[in-house]
Amino acid sequence: MAKTTLIKNALIVTIDARDRVFDGDLLIEDNRIIRLGKRIDLPADEIVNGENLIVIPGFIQTHVHLCQALFRNLADDLALLDWLQKKIWPFEAAHTAETLRISARLGLAEMIASGTTTILDMGTVNHQDVIFEELAQSGIRAFAGKTMMDNGDLPAGLRETTDDSLKQSLRLLEKWHNFDNGRLKYALAPRFALSSSERLLIEAAKMAADQGVILHSHAAENREETQLVRDRFGVGNIALFEKIGAAGPNLCLAHCIWSDEDERRLLKERDIKVLHCPSANLKLGSGIAPVPDYLERGVTVSLGADGAPCNNNMDMFTEMRLAALIQKPLHGPQAMPAGQVLRMATINGARTLGLEDLIGSIESGKLADLTFIRKNEIHSLPFENVYSKLVYSTRASDVEHVMINGKWVMKDRFLLTIESDKLPEMATKAISQFQI
Amino acid sequence: MAKTTLIKNALIVTIDARDRVFDGDLLIEDNRIIRLGKRIDLPADEIVNGENLIVIPGFIQTHVHLCQALFRNLADDLALLDWLQKKIWPFEAAHTAETLRISARLGLAEMIASGTTTILDMGTVNHQDVIFEELAQSGIRAFAGKTMMDNGDLPAGLRETTDDSLKQSLRLLEKWHNFDNGRLKYALAPRFALSSSERLLIEAAKMAADQGVILHSHAAENREETQLVRDRFGVGNIALFEKIGAAGPNLCLAHCIWSDEDERRLLKERDIKVLHCPSANLKLGSGIAPVPDYLERGVTVSLGADGAPCNNNMDMFTEMRLAALIQKPLHGPQAMPAGQVLRMATINGARTLGLEDLIGSIESGKLADLTFIRKNEIHSLPFENVYSKLVYSTRASDVEHVMINGKWVMKDRFLLTIESDKLPEMATKAISQFQI
Repeated sequence: MAKTTLIKNALIVTIDARDRVFDGDLLIEDNRIIRLGKRIDLPADEIVNGENLIVIPGFIQTHVHLCQALFRNLADDLALLDWLQKKIWPFEAAHTAETLRISARLGLAEMIASGTTTILDMGTVNHQDVIFEELAQSGIRAFAGKTMMDNGDLPAGLRETTDDSLKQSLRLLEKWHNFDNGRLKYALAPRFALSSSERLLIEAAKMAADQGVILHSHAAENREETQLVRDRFGVGNIALFEKIGAAGPNLCLAHCIWSDEDERRLLKERDIKVLHCPSANLKLGSGIAPVPDYLERGVTVSLGADGAPCNNNMDMFTEMRLAALIQKPLHGPQAMPAGQVLRMATINGARTLGLEDLIGSIESGKLADLTFIRKNEIHSLPFENVYSKLVYSTRASDVEHVMINGKWVMKDRFLLTIESDKLPEMATKAISQFQI
Repeated sequence: MAKTTLIKNALIVTIDARDRVFDGDLLIEDNRIIRLGKRIDLPADEIVNGENLIVIPGFIQTHVHLCQALFRNLADDLALLDWLQKKIWPFEAAHTAETLRISARLGLAEMIASGTTTILDMGTVNHQDVIFEELAQSGIRAFAGKTMMDNGDLPAGLRETTDDSLKQSLRLLEKWHNFDNGRLKYALAPRFALSSSERLLIEAAKMAADQGVILHSHAAENREETQLVRDRFGVGNIALFEKIGAAGPNLCLAHCIWSDEDERRLLKERDIKVLHCPSANLKLGSGIAPVPDYLERGVTVSLGADGAPCNNNMDMFTEMRLAALIQKPLHGPQAMPAGQVLRMATINGARTLGLEDLIGSIESGKLADLTFIRKNEIHSLPFENVYSKLVYSTRASDVEHVMINGKWVMKDRFLLTIESDKLPEMATKAISQFQI
């Protein structure tokens, strides 16, 4: 018999096509939402009192780097290319399987505890099985893949041959894609144009098409980077993905700040997904992505925290608030209303990952990925507009419970799938081994 | 006998002239820090285990509006003048003494719980005694004053005659200035140029000089507002304060976004204080203040959350992070390093208020205004650079204890001077009485 859970008397923010928000009940059977309404009087194995809770679809972060969580607060005040060459690549090259495991666990603990239920992760070059093991254990829904790097001035531990990079990726894909009935998916991840040979980009795009998986990369993040791409490939950084045959709905590009008009049209026409990371874009001094323009064109834009060392958080509340605020001096205070931003953090993430029929909103038949938020905290009261409350004044620490795929992963703020007691000590010890 | 408190084995971030940060002990006698060092072995009435704690000087927010805390999440997506005319002024005009009390208490509870120990508050036109009563009760260190408004298209309840505005201000000043041995101070507060007659500005400036108190106002927040000031007075909004005889070290001006070169020189030459409110400036679409330029000229710039309806928080961690991040796309990732931002939130606030010899840093002889932060939270680990940790990845919910003037106002996250249990219910009920 499937387990049933009944949530009673919560404020339910559906993010469905009609933007329904109502006080009511929610019935979950096994891993699915099977019913929602003003009042459901049915027996259930577990009844949750939702009186002081807001229930929203779990957040979907479409661009994160679990492998970097351990490098938080260690790489400030640098622009992208320096940040990579002086800090992040040497750090990643020095990861052992064990430090990578702690890094992934640290990032997952933070993200689950702040209400994220699905991620698209870019891994590092080595030990990627460890990240999948941690994803499997945590209960999170995830798309992930080893990063692929075969070109440029890279630390010894990160430089791969093109063939090895492709071979390792295929091995991992075959091992992990669709693990746990599809909760985990593989995503091919050539890091960015400057660290890739043209052949790597072409072959990764082919493999993604052949295998039916996401192709995940960075593009047009930094002005200097974008110019270097143009110098080398003769086209803009987003246009490059068309040139190498990768432009399509499975292409997920982080940042897309420095796009030209042709590239913006391309994003829309080919349904390329934009992964917007406002904190990282500011902190690395990269710029402000033209998100209102993308949204007006109908491009799918979703949100991610990127890596801990360029943020320095992995918290969707922080990203939502910033995504709204940074556009207002440029486009006026009406730009990016809270409801639109909450959609970016949920249903747009689902659409980005090709899962809009399964996650991203609270609807009958969808998977039970749910975030429960305390409603009556002093710092977020009063409220009339729940979108404003959620986007502008709710904190990560207001998340009370989190359910993924019908299973509790946090209850009463206690993480159930990750041993978090010893994690601070483990993280502190792990980072002390790095000499960067 | 004076009470003594000994903090043992904490990470002490002094913000002193040498930027000392060290693991050690801190001895407090009555309301003063009397000794700090690697190890203090002296008897004390109370011993606090600081092993998992960072101790910093309490935050100093130099521009807030307690009267607006009750209007949080109720005035989004509006530019300054519409935001005032359509929402904030009608709300303020409808305040009763009782709703104002709840608003002040709500804001104070949030600020103390997130580590703020001193504020400069701009009140509303009526019932200002209530705000002082709440300030007195809360234990916070505060500069406050009724706002003064005698000009323009104002709701009936807010429009005063010039004489009444001055008379009421003087009455309140005489009643509250230096209350509790100087813990509370009066600050004269003509709201902004557009809601003031020239005579009100001149007389308020005179009264501030005569009485030796701060003159607190808004200036050059919004482009349209700044142009309207120029149309009416024939000078820029900051220059106006020189014209009316107010330019001096006791002049505290919120925002100062749209300043010209002459005004920037004026800020420095006359030691006018700039109160920077990054969230509010973004949310109202006002712009980004030229803070790096001000700091380079040697202008004192401090931080404040402004009002809850234009933020929608009153939390210094949020303001610090944003103050750093928003400048980096404009001035490069090296702009506004974390240590500089933490100084803005502490010692620059003290200097703004003329209290740099008493608060704003942890030094022997200074008043014991201290914020204690949990060090080993998963979302802010690991760290090498404590400034980066505090500015970028520490959350309001990480504040564990707060001491003001040698007295605990929050211990183990429990507020000791404000009854917070019933506050959510009181706030929700209070706001339901407003018909705006």
